[in-house]
Amino acid sequence: MPIKRLTADERAAALADLPEWESVEGKRDAIVRHFAFADFAEAFAFMTHVAMLAEKADHHPEWSNVYNRVDIVLTTHDAGGLSTRDVALAHAIDAIVE
Amino acid sequence: MPIKRLTADERAAALADLPEWESVEGKRDAIVRHFAFADFAEAFAFMTHVAMLAEKADHHPEWSNVYNRVDIVLTTHDAGGLSTRDVALAHAIDAIVE
Repeated sequence: MPIKRLTADERAAALADLPEWESVEGKRDAIVRHFAFADFAEAFAFMTHVAMLAEKADHHPEWSNVYNRVDIVLTTHDAGGLSTRDVALAHAIDAIVE
Repeated sequence: MPIKRLTADERAAALADLPEWESVEGKRDAIVRHFAFADFAEAFAFMTHVAMLAEKADHHPEWSNVYNRVDIVLTTHDAGGLSTRDVALAHAIDAIVE
């Protein structure tokens, strides 16, 4: 069964539970969170943890890193926007840094 | 001693030895290489290798990853542009994938 894009109501409810994530500006239906760590080593350790989660879930982020900063964008290409997979991965990522 | 930005001649000579790297478009003095791997696991394994090199050299890339693709931008903020550190890191990164 193909993954479905969240409805507007589902999206709003999901984002209410993800206060650190915001909608990506522009036309894409995606969410982003910006992280800052003490240094590169801590940032990359975090990325490694996220990479394991993502691979296990077979759902991967679009992300970038500059020294101690990591930006993670989540969306589901197969759904053409935000899906439950993104919501689940966002919660799992939040749990790493909490 | 602060790290110096390459002169135009030094830059041209360095890039002639780095055929896979190109100048970043726009006003930044930086170089970029685009990588593609079989899948996310291979891409992230490569990133982990680069992260170790970068940390050891205390010179870090600006990079992004989407599934099997990795884009790496190198520049030296302290020098205001490309320096020997970027050239050295580019060669070390090339050696991983050769």
